[in-house]
Amino acid sequence: MSAEAPSIILVTPQLGENIGGAARAMLNCGMIDLRLVNPRDGWPNIKAERAAVGALELMPPVKVFDTLGGAVNELTLVFATTARDRKMVKPIVTVRQAALESRAHIASGGKVGFIFGPERTGLLSDDVTLANKLVTVPLNPDFTSLNLGQAVLLIGYEWFQAADETPASQMPLNGTLPATKEELQNFFAHLERELDECGFLRNLEARPSMIRNLRNMFQRADLTEQEVRTLHGMIKELTTLRAPRRRG
Amino acid sequence: MSAEAPSIILVTPQLGENIGGAARAMLNCGMIDLRLVNPRDGWPNIKAERAAVGALELMPPVKVFDTLGGAVNELTLVFATTARDRKMVKPIVTVRQAALESRAHIASGGKVGFIFGPERTGLLSDDVTLANKLVTVPLNPDFTSLNLGQAVLLIGYEWFQAADETPASQMPLNGTLPATKEELQNFFAHLERELDECGFLRNLEARPSMIRNLRNMFQRADLTEQEVRTLHGMIKELTTLRAPRRRG
Repeated sequence: MSAEAPSIILVTPQLGENIGGAARAMLNCGMIDLRLVNPRDGWPNIKAERAAVGALELMPPVKVFDTLGGAVNELTLVFATTARDRKMVKPIVTVRQAALESRAHIASGGKVGFIFGPERTGLLSDDVTLANKLVTVPLNPDFTSLNLGQAVLLIGYEWFQAADETPASQMPLNGTLPATKEELQNFFAHLERELDECGFLRNLEARPSMIRNLRNMFQRADLTEQEVRTLHGMIKELTTLRAPRRRG
Repeated sequence: MSAEAPSIILVTPQLGENIGGAARAMLNCGMIDLRLVNPRDGWPNIKAERAAVGALELMPPVKVFDTLGGAVNELTLVFATTARDRKMVKPIVTVRQAALESRAHIASGGKVGFIFGPERTGLLSDDVTLANKLVTVPLNPDFTSLNLGQAVLLIGYEWFQAADETPASQMPLNGTLPATKEELQNFFAHLERELDECGFLRNLEARPSMIRNLRNMFQRADLTEQEVRTLHGMIKELTTLRAPRRRG
């Protein structure tokens, strides 16, 4: 969460619910500077507060402006979100690209904002000329109904991901350790000894490939040392149970 | 939009609004297979239909199941979305990574699903054991309130992006062409001739760097041939207007 994160500027928003939804989505993504240009129902707005589920109280006060020009005054890079083709010669970037450019711009000392038009009508073309670039959200072209909160969420999400360091994939071990290859080989030896004994591997032609398949299956499971101990115990109990039956 | 896209499975969803929000977000992202396990208020649900703003009518009928086991039966790769630490040894992947793995898995003939628990309580640990992996959404850890529709949107968004080919950045030219370097050089010559004539470049020491700065400014603007013509005309009119004033 940072005062340097992009500002979100809503131009003439109509519904308090959408302002609140935008605020909630902003805070989800560490953005805290919300600006409103001529909100239809004035400000503050009780419906916005309800829809923000606590986000507005955790952010600095919302700034209200009479004109979009005033709202973007001290910013240095502005993106306009618009679904319609504007017939303007202005770069169009994806949300992901806008997030990367925002991070780079802020890192070199700039201030970034994203402007959103009123629900239904969208930004006026004259509003769009105040922006450096247009942002497009690549989604299903046959059903593009995104509300304001969802649009802000996708922009904030990409902004957050652009600097997030969560590993793409991780394995929580909950206090235990990954099994060493020695532990795994001891388990394979135990398992295969018992499988030989009970006759499961009696087909000597198939035996080598069956063993390879079983070993690969357990390798893929990325076992912990605790799990290997559990498997040893399981094999032991299964074979103990088997023995009396055969004898009986 | 594809029948091969991942299935979304909502376990005991409480609010119709959230089921509808999930359906809307799914269709935004080209996902059409929605499955419900024991929805609290039964199915169909008028609140869900309203919140889906038309999405449910454009999707195949929602499938309703008594158990999560039944709902995931024919799937081959299942991700569980959960915010809590489950103390399980199970891989945790980011939404982006889950989307990439889903695309790869489906490309090799598998069927993918994402399961979501009930609002507030989330998935039971026994439900989680039906999944291959857990999905985490990297967002502001101090404010993680995402509703069901927003969580589905982020997963669907990444799924869509993982195969989307929208260029990261593009410049619509609206029927005109980018200016050639010859057109730009002719414009530089015109501009600099007039700037020499009016005295703007009279400081001969500063002149080379001023000219370089001006040229770079216009290079950065990625002008079209139409825009270069406009600039020629603008310089021409500005100098025409200037002459009489000076004479006057």
